[in-house]
Amino acid sequence: MHRASEDHRSVAFPELVRPLIEETRRLFRTEVGSVALFPASGTGGWEAALTNTLPSGGRVLLPCAGQFAALWGDSARRLGYRVDVLPGVEWGDPPPPDRIEAALAADSGAEIRAVLIVHNETSTGVTADVQAIRAGMDRAGHGALLMVDGVSSIGSLRYRHDEWGVDVAVTGSQKGLMLPAGLALMAFSPKAIAALEHGSPRAYFDLAPMLAQNKLGFFPYTPSIPMLYGLREALAMLAEEGMQAVITRHARLARGVRAAVAAWPLPICCRDPQAVSNTVTTIMTPAGIDASKLIANAFTRYDLALGAGLGPLAGKAFRIGHVGDLNEGMLLGALGLVEMALADAGVALTPGSGVAAAQQLWRETEA
Amino acid sequence: MHRASEDHRSVAFPELVRPLIEETRRLFRTEVGSVALFPASGTGGWEAALTNTLPSGGRVLLPCAGQFAALWGDSARRLGYRVDVLPGVEWGDPPPPDRIEAALAADSGAEIRAVLIVHNETSTGVTADVQAIRAGMDRAGHGALLMVDGVSSIGSLRYRHDEWGVDVAVTGSQKGLMLPAGLALMAFSPKAIAALEHGSPRAYFDLAPMLAQNKLGFFPYTPSIPMLYGLREALAMLAEEGMQAVITRHARLARGVRAAVAAWPLPICCRDPQAVSNTVTTIMTPAGIDASKLIANAFTRYDLALGAGLGPLAGKAFRIGHVGDLNEGMLLGALGLVEMALADAGVALTPGSGVAAAQQLWRETEA
Repeated sequence: MHRASEDHRSVAFPELVRPLIEETRRLFRTEVGSVALFPASGTGGWEAALTNTLPSGGRVLLPCAGQFAALWGDSARRLGYRVDVLPGVEWGDPPPPDRIEAALAADSGAEIRAVLIVHNETSTGVTADVQAIRAGMDRAGHGALLMVDGVSSIGSLRYRHDEWGVDVAVTGSQKGLMLPAGLALMAFSPKAIAALEHGSPRAYFDLAPMLAQNKLGFFPYTPSIPMLYGLREALAMLAEEGMQAVITRHARLARGVRAAVAAWPLPICCRDPQAVSNTVTTIMTPAGIDASKLIANAFTRYDLALGAGLGPLAGKAFRIGHVGDLNEGMLLGALGLVEMALADAGVALTPGSGVAAAQQLWRETEA
Repeated sequence: MHRASEDHRSVAFPELVRPLIEETRRLFRTEVGSVALFPASGTGGWEAALTNTLPSGGRVLLPCAGQFAALWGDSARRLGYRVDVLPGVEWGDPPPPDRIEAALAADSGAEIRAVLIVHNETSTGVTADVQAIRAGMDRAGHGALLMVDGVSSIGSLRYRHDEWGVDVAVTGSQKGLMLPAGLALMAFSPKAIAALEHGSPRAYFDLAPMLAQNKLGFFPYTPSIPMLYGLREALAMLAEEGMQAVITRHARLARGVRAAVAAWPLPICCRDPQAVSNTVTTIMTPAGIDASKLIANAFTRYDLALGAGLGPLAGKAFRIGHVGDLNEGMLLGALGLVEMALADAGVALTPGSGVAAAQQLWRETEA
């Protein structure tokens, strides 16, 4: 990324852009879909997903089981869409395929235009079963678009755009792609592309000029060139390790983190053992322990960046991110510092117990 | 900018953000206004200017004398606004204060909500007299907002947000601020802030949560952290040289470029000698010389990035940018290569004539 500036209208620029578009297509595992790179954070990708494909005032169905689902719904409301929040979904639950299916089956007027799914809910550490959700939508015979926020999943967890029948997917540059924030990467199915003509007013996030210019190897407006070079390298790194190896590494490292948490022992937020996230673990602090103070102490005393509890989890939980360029040693350091911060906060635990549990798991399993 | 990633929700993050907001205020020369940093390119800033302050379907007045004015108007139309293009303005002209005044005076129903002015039209190399436009609006006694695109001016040309009575200003990170694209910097007058409640649907570019979070030293969604550090350094560089010295340097270097062009001799696009731009010079190629081929040859043979002629100027003009971290030697190199590319293209000129004219001007004037 650390390069001299260059002209994004030069005759050489397409040599950067065209292969990058192809590699991005591989990231999403799409052959029939179209991909786009918007200079924005993932929040901008949410907006692009909605405005490009849904008519003004259109209805969307949202299982809201975490902060990022809530924020996506909030964006939709502010843009004038009607958001049907699926009832009975609690934070810590994955989005329930059967109840999504039932809600669609009950929508006999086909008013719901899209189902919004956060693939990996970064606030709770819960992963959705997108494939099962798609199967439920198909059983309901409903034509709603399936939109997926893959910000903390794509590039680190298994994701199959075409195979799973996702219509619009969004990811950001700052998680599995190991880059700074600033690039919203998106994939659109042919069905989503067909919906463009029925979209809402849009300009910056308009997909049509983006696809037209990308085809020529350019962008409709000034792109962030360092981010494009960074993405090229990130995708090369993922290809070098192999995407399946990356997914397996994340799964194994996450099991070690969960083994550590179980040894302390502290409960995790995720209530479904089948839905635990392999990129982030949300840990509940005992009653009487202010997680915000624990996080601030870990940061100032030990230079450790823990994720905060968000929304209703503020002060009650902290999060360990385990995504991207990461190995056992980096995580052992983090787990050891978490133990020290927990002890500082007055949590009764055996120092080294979590570290030992992670060590044991990683020694007993092959990398 | 080349730093390890960090947590944008950490207790230390406000130490970066709060002084940056204050320094950005100084860049715009505003004390009463509010500033914001959106993770987007300047095109996103155009959208934020419109959607935050104008009701859906509202009318705007646009003197359209270049590609960037045309694109801003295009964004407005796509977002559902009605764009009144001021008649009789040609490419190469600055926006005419008297005719803007007359158009507002004729708008007895006060239907026009905003006047959109590109301060420095990068396609034609023409600078608008924003102060005179404001005076005309005041004489007309019209309440429209004055919106200014300062992408290729703020940070290199004279700009006074409060003094000139600008309501919304936009700049990008990639010109006078010498950074990659990816940050839209904006300033809003108290009148623009008061208009927020009458704005259009918006989410990513919604100013209210941005201002609320900035006040606390945070952002409503993930910012591009390297860009924030880059901005801090860019603003420090401008402060170190002194903003008046930066403006004077751009003026002097631009005079040298124009002296070179006059020696070749080739006409420039700007038709008003009072309105020549000090950050970019647009040069018309003689009939029969394809400027696009000249630009491609300069790039492939001499590694020189010239700006292309845009819109109706495609193939008929090329542009020399002279903005940012730049001195005489860098420009002499560029001018010398332009002469070689012109000669390759078959333009009759005395080799070294432009270089000599620039040398003479710079020797005869004090830096």
